[in-house]
Amino acid sequence: MSYFITIEGPEGSGKSTVIKALANELSNDFEVVTTREPGGIKISEDIRNIILDDASAMDYRTEALLFAASRRQHLVEKVLPALQMGKIVLCDRFIDSSLAYQGYARGIGIDEIRAINEFAIEGKYPDLTLYLRVEPEIGLLRIKDNSRETNRLDKEQIDFHQRVVKGYDELLHLHPERIKLIDASKPLLEVVNDCLEAINKSIN
Amino acid sequence: MSYFITIEGPEGSGKSTVIKALANELSNDFEVVTTREPGGIKISEDIRNIILDDASAMDYRTEALLFAASRRQHLVEKVLPALQMGKIVLCDRFIDSSLAYQGYARGIGIDEIRAINEFAIEGKYPDLTLYLRVEPEIGLLRIKDNSRETNRLDKEQIDFHQRVVKGYDELLHLHPERIKLIDASKPLLEVVNDCLEAINKSIN
Repeated sequence: MSYFITIEGPEGSGKSTVIKALANELSNDFEVVTTREPGGIKISEDIRNIILDDASAMDYRTEALLFAASRRQHLVEKVLPALQMGKIVLCDRFIDSSLAYQGYARGIGIDEIRAINEFAIEGKYPDLTLYLRVEPEIGLLRIKDNSRETNRLDKEQIDFHQRVVKGYDELLHLHPERIKLIDASKPLLEVVNDCLEAINKSIN
Repeated sequence: MSYFITIEGPEGSGKSTVIKALANELSNDFEVVTTREPGGIKISEDIRNIILDDASAMDYRTEALLFAASRRQHLVEKVLPALQMGKIVLCDRFIDSSLAYQGYARGIGIDEIRAINEFAIEGKYPDLTLYLRVEPEIGLLRIKDNSRETNRLDKEQIDFHQRVVKGYDELLHLHPERIKLIDASKPLLEVVNDCLEAINKSIN
């Protein structure tokens, strides 16, 4: 039973916690791999280091191409082999993150970001994408409350995060067959149950 | 007088020697900048190092995205500022190299390579491209004779180089208004003169 599931959403939507809980539940019945880019893939790690090290001087289009390159190598080296071995892959962020962040929020445009990412994924869209939706204000508060180490994106203005959520909403509208909306403002247990329900419905 | 000129051709076509001679001649009348990717741009150098370091494990599409990322940053940081200052930029390899090498010779396909590179250059095609054409056998012999340090591409089979030349020939056919054919099997002085003639004709 190979199945490629991506988990998407803005900062503070609880993706990593939800993925852990989902993997725990699903591993009763399936072989499950959880991953996220760069996912321990050396080339993808090296690319990620450039994105982080050189952030201040980096053009947004250079950044978008580097994310696509990192995605490609992670897909080829980690995701596809796991799928070929019949596993369920739960991946924290994938193409929709680039569409929402670089395409919408950075303002490069969804069609152009889609073009370079379709080059990278070569038709390998997820079988199912769970969109964990929270209002940006709530998401950012959660991060602050958890005093999680903030990264560059966490520091962006609230309006950037609002554009991210708007971008995801638009993607949901464009791809209702693939992307399922999960209300991530609910308590964790309910969110996980809603995700499991969406997964079961999609697989069967 | 800003003008963006790229010099293209297979290995051993004499690009770097010709560029030096052209810069020398043109600098009598114009401000001239010569460059090649990564061209001392830190981000582009960092990207190039990944391409060289991780060559064995790297997927061809990852490589193509990294070349496009390196191209983007070099364009933004070095080429465009020089053009904005009214200079003539002579650039050793640009988008056509990716089309010929990754698109044709690697077999990824020209349309897909064009898509990611048009994302990178954002419409900034060269004003003029000089295609220094030599038969691959002659080009490879020249490299060997010069006992130039061989790089990864030099080691590729002769049929790869034949595909590169075939790719350039096709590009020449597609873009006759921009790309000018220079017979680079002639003696250096004649090649330089033919290039200068093409440049003068294009500028005027």
